Amino acid sequence: MQFAGPLALRSGASISDYTLAYETYGTLNAERSNAVLVCHALNASHHVAGVYQGQARSEGWWDNMVGPGKPLDTDRFFVIGVNNLGSCFGSTGPMHVNPATGRVYGADFPVVTVEDWVDAQAALLDALGIETLAAVMGGSLGGMQALSWTLQYPDRVRHAVVVASAPNLTAENIAFNEVARRAIVTDPDFHGGHFYEHGVVPKRGLRIARMIGHITYLSDDVMNAKFGRILRSAVEGEVAGADYRYSTQDVEFQIESYLRYQGDKFSEYFDANTYLLITRALDYFDPARSHGGKLSAALAQARAKFLLVSFKTDWRFSPARSREIVKALLDNSRNVSYAEIDAPHGHDAFLLDDVRYMGVVRSYFERVAREFQQ
Amino acid sequence: MQFAGPLALRSGASISDYTLAYETYGTLNAERSNAVLVCHALNASHHVAGVYQGQARSEGWWDNMVGPGKPLDTDRFFVIGVNNLGSCFGSTGPMHVNPATGRVYGADFPVVTVEDWVDAQAALLDALGIETLAAVMGGSLGGMQALSWTLQYPDRVRHAVVVASAPNLTAENIAFNEVARRAIVTDPDFHGGHFYEHGVVPKRGLRIARMIGHITYLSDDVMNAKFGRILRSAVEGEVAGADYRYSTQDVEFQIESYLRYQGDKFSEYFDANTYLLITRALDYFDPARSHGGKLSAALAQARAKFLLVSFKTDWRFSPARSREIVKALLDNSRNVSYAEIDAPHGHDAFLLDDVRYMGVVRSYFERVAREFQQ
Repeated sequence: MQFAGPLALRSGASISDYTLAYETYGTLNAERSNAVLVCHALNASHHVAGVYQGQARSEGWWDNMVGPGKPLDTDRFFVIGVNNLGSCFGSTGPMHVNPATGRVYGADFPVVTVEDWVDAQAALLDALGIETLAAVMGGSLGGMQALSWTLQYPDRVRHAVVVASAPNLTAENIAFNEVARRAIVTDPDFHGGHFYEHGVVPKRGLRIARMIGHITYLSDDVMNAKFGRILRSAVEGEVAGADYRYSTQDVEFQIESYLRYQGDKFSEYFDANTYLLITRALDYFDPARSHGGKLSAALAQARAKFLLVSFKTDWRFSPARSREIVKALLDNSRNVSYAEIDAPHGHDAFLLDDVRYMGVVRSYFERVAREFQQ
Repeated sequence: MQFAGPLALRSGASISDYTLAYETYGTLNAERSNAVLVCHALNASHHVAGVYQGQARSEGWWDNMVGPGKPLDTDRFFVIGVNNLGSCFGSTGPMHVNPATGRVYGADFPVVTVEDWVDAQAALLDALGIETLAAVMGGSLGGMQALSWTLQYPDRVRHAVVVASAPNLTAENIAFNEVARRAIVTDPDFHGGHFYEHGVVPKRGLRIARMIGHITYLSDDVMNAKFGRILRSAVEGEVAGADYRYSTQDVEFQIESYLRYQGDKFSEYFDANTYLLITRALDYFDPARSHGGKLSAALAQARAKFLLVSFKTDWRFSPARSREIVKALLDNSRNVSYAEIDAPHGHDAFLLDDVRYMGVVRSYFERVAREFQQ
C-alpha cells in the first residue's frame, strides 16, 4: 500500500511517498474487532503464513503458528503481516529511489526505530479501517514492537503477545550487533552504503553477520546435539574416513559447513543497509529510557492484557529479560500471563514447534476470541 | 633457542631449523626438581611475568600470578615461559622464512596442534637439562597443553594446573572460531595468506576476529556492569548531552567504542596466519578422540596430580567442561583438586585477580613445593 506521508521519525527526519508491503489472512468480522497484527524480527517479512501458489518452499515464517486451526487461528482472526520500513521485502527501503532526490537511498535511508515502525503500522491500520486490534503479537524484535504498541497506542490494542523479547538490549547484544555491522561496513564492496551504484553487494560482510547471528540464535546444547564435533567427511561418507585434514581454511567440522551455508544463502537475498538499520533499531529500543531508566514507570501507559513467553535456553533474550517486563507490568497491576518454556533450541525456539509453547499461545488466543465473540 | 629438528608434527609434516622464544624466572635448584612450565593461550607469549627494563606497561601476561612471593612463587620455583610454534612473538611462525624454500611461510606454515606444541616444549626442556617438571600450568588453551603434557609425557610431570579449560571445544566454540577465521580469510588483504609479500595486513578481518573474541571472553553480567547501555557521548561529557545520534555507523554506545579499540589495537600486532593456526589447534584438541570419545580412557595415561579451576560465569569454557575432566580423572582414581570460583568476569577471570582463585593456586603450589623440599 502506498502512503503519501510524511511520516515523522524519531530521528527528526521524515519519510514521504513510501510503500508498506502487507498480507492478510482470514476475514475481518463485521465489528472489525478480530484483527491481529503480527510484527516481524530482523530477517522476516510480511509473509507470515501460507504458501504462494506454484512456489515450492514458500511457507510464511510463522506458518506453524498462524493459519486455519493453528494457535493463531485464521478461521477466527483477521491476521495482518506487514514488512517494516527499511526492510528489503517490498516495503520502502535503502534499495529504493528517494523521491526527493531521484537517487537510490542507500546509506541515506533515514534511521528508523521500533516506535517509527509502530507508527507506520498504525497508519496501515487506519487505511484498512481498523481502529482497535484484538491483539498485537511478535517474537524477538517483533515482541519489542508489540510492547511498544501498548505504550504508543494504548487504546488501540486489547492484547499483546510478546515472545522471546526484552525491554532493551544488553551490552552483549549490542556488541554482537556491532561486530556484524563492522563486518558489513568494512567490506570494501560496501562503498559507504552506496554499493548499488557500483553493481556489487558486500557479501563478505553479510556472510559474517549472518554467521554471528546464527550462533547467537541457537543454544550451546542444541548445537552440540545437532553438530557436536562431527567432521564433514564423516557425514559425506568419504572413503578416506573421518580424519582431520590439518588445514586452516578447509571446511572440516559440520558446524562450519552449516554456518558457511547459512551465511552464503543470506548474502544472496538480504540487503546490507537493511541489516544496519534493523540492528540499530534493536540497539535503540528502550522504553524505560525516557522514564529515568524505570521500566515500571514506562509501562504504566499500557492498557492491554499481556501474554509473555520466554525460552529457558535463549541466551540472546533470556527469560530474565521477559521477567523484567512481567514485573514492571505487575507493578502497574496489569493483567499478565507468563510462560517460561523449557525448550532446548535457544532464541530460535520462538519460531519452532513445541507442544507447550503452541498450547500456551492457542489457549491465550481462545481467551481473546471469547472476548469479541460475546 | 635454535633447534635443528626435524620436529615431527601430527599432520604428518615436520619442521626443521626453528626457534623457540622463551623466558625463565627464578632459579633452577640443584636437584632440577623445581621447574614449572607455563603454557600460553591464543594471544599471549613467553613473557609470562616481570617487566622489561625501561619499557612502560611491559608486564608479563600472568604477572599477577607469577613472581617473587606470588601464587606461583619464583623465589621457590624456576618458571619457564615459551612462545609456541606458529605464534608471532619470537618463535618460528608464518611470518618467517621457510629455510627449505627461501620464501616466507605465510599460509604454508604447517598446521600445528596442542600435541606438537607439547613436543616442542619437551625438546626445550631437554635442552635446558630438565627431565621432570614440578608442574605444568596453563589457562584456556594453555590448560589444554597442561592436560596434554600429562598424557604425552606422564613421567615428566608431577603436577598439572589446568585453569578455565576444556577437554575439547563444543560446536559453539568451533563456530565462533570459524566466524573469526572467515573474517580474516575473506579480507581482500589476506591474499590467501601471502599478504606479507603484498606489503599489507588483513586488519579488517583481524579486528572482527578480536571483537568476537572479546565478547566471548566476558560474561554478559560484567559487560552490563562495565558498559551497560551507556552512550559514549555521556562518558565524554558532550554539551549536547547523551542522546541517540540516529546513525548506523557512528560509535554511539560505550561497548562499541571499547570493542573497536580492542579490535584496532589487536590488528596492529597480531599475525593473521597465527590466528588461523591457533584457533585450529583449539578446534582439533580432543584427547578422547583416539579413545572412542571416552575421556576416562584417554586420561588413564595420566600419572600427575591435578588442580583444576573453573569460573562460574565463563560461558566459553564453562565449569561443566572442567568437571568432565575432573570426573574422568576420578574414574581413574587420580589425585585431583577442583575449585569452581564464583567470579563475575567470564573466561577472562583466569587472567584477573580474585582472592579465592589466587588463594587456591597459592595453596596448591605450597603443597607442590613441600614435595621437593622434603
